[in-house]
Amino acid sequence: MKTAAILIIGNEILSGRTRDANLQLLAKALAARGVRLLETRVVADRFEAIVAGVNALRASYDYVFTTGGIGPTHDDITTECVAAAFGRRVAEDPEAVRRLIEYYGANAVNEARLRMARVVAGASLIDNPVSAAPGFRIENVFVLPGVPRILEAMLDDVISALPQGAPIASMSVTVWLRESEIATGLSNIQDAHPTVDIGSYPFAREERLGTSLVVRGTAPEAVADAVNAITDMLRAAEAEFTLDTPV
Amino acid sequence: MKTAAILIIGNEILSGRTRDANLQLLAKALAARGVRLLETRVVADRFEAIVAGVNALRASYDYVFTTGGIGPTHDDITTECVAAAFGRRVAEDPEAVRRLIEYYGANAVNEARLRMARVVAGASLIDNPVSAAPGFRIENVFVLPGVPRILEAMLDDVISALPQGAPIASMSVTVWLRESEIATGLSNIQDAHPTVDIGSYPFAREERLGTSLVVRGTAPEAVADAVNAITDMLRAAEAEFTLDTPV
Repeated sequence: MKTAAILIIGNEILSGRTRDANLQLLAKALAARGVRLLETRVVADRFEAIVAGVNALRASYDYVFTTGGIGPTHDDITTECVAAAFGRRVAEDPEAVRRLIEYYGANAVNEARLRMARVVAGASLIDNPVSAAPGFRIENVFVLPGVPRILEAMLDDVISALPQGAPIASMSVTVWLRESEIATGLSNIQDAHPTVDIGSYPFAREERLGTSLVVRGTAPEAVADAVNAITDMLRAAEAEFTLDTPV
Repeated sequence: MKTAAILIIGNEILSGRTRDANLQLLAKALAARGVRLLETRVVADRFEAIVAGVNALRASYDYVFTTGGIGPTHDDITTECVAAAFGRRVAEDPEAVRRLIEYYGANAVNEARLRMARVVAGASLIDNPVSAAPGFRIENVFVLPGVPRILEAMLDDVISALPQGAPIASMSVTVWLRESEIATGLSNIQDAHPTVDIGSYPFAREERLGTSLVVRGTAPEAVADAVNAITDMLRAAEAEFTLDTPV
């Protein structure tokens, strides 16, 4: 199974001004492709932090996705940082220039807009159907924009470039008990079903406390077996629960 | 100025099932306390990943905040991981036991619930006014729960333990122009105001494209000067804009 990491370049996330939406967008798309997202880092818009993040993650995971910092303004430094991480130079890409001219018109492609045609030398472009300025891929690193609406529109192109892995089968059970009321039984079920991961997530909804139990694994029948063991336990405890559709 | 990092322990975040809410909660609280959040990592519920994350971040930043993985179930392994990171053992804390007994009643404190009284040896407790099970602090690492409602209730206790730093002054301007229409002027303003950080964030709202310009710095008058330069530029361009209240 292929592994992945995300590097979010985002002062505005770390300052608390903006709540990140890109992690979940990418996470869902990767899960559907059978790629296992194992880490995400959010770093400030600082040269050293971005370079270090790119290099640490690209050495540890099969794929790395960066989001943010590829626009036309002075604070968009991701392309320079990825180039430095790879020891390569930044180059204006002729096809990217062509796309920007087509989108803005030849007279409106100013210096700032041409900044968005600069990629790491040797990179391949990632199509942007919303606002023309492309992302790019260099080796195992995919450089993507930070605006969620644009990122989302580019994801098809990105994800289809990855080989399809075995999707993770997943089922969940919502039960109106506290985690601590089912923890021991759940631990026994996990021990008896070592090929799946059972996650337990407490929640409060309408002033009631409950727990979501999520079972994941590559073998759907093993997931179903573990879910059956959980529902048997809950029935024996006369607990109120719902078996959710696969998530 | 003190620096901070967050370590989110969260399979459910990386799988895309849940959208993280804790980063923004902590980020806002830290910003208000004058602490600079410089990095956040989201790692899977794996022993090695959590230990490595704790050790990397506690060596690099003044404070580290972990969220998630301190409940009563088998997948709650954060306490063991933090202990391993510090080379310490895990110990049942008598005061934590007392709080759990007070909350659940002596007869209902089962083995699973007692798991929530286990902390890294030598840690100090962090009060949980919602559901009794405490967090804890060991040196510069604060170990906190993953449920946002409970985390939020515990934040006062956590944040008040930190010395008050100089808050970051911040103002923002929303303009109905694309980034690429103001990039050059904005870059000149950033160069002329080196003591502040000017961030530029494009957005789409009601089918219109605009840009949020956020100016941050420790000196409020320097922030105001840069904002004045920006609004002068926008007036000269006859652009539609609003000066937002401080964020």
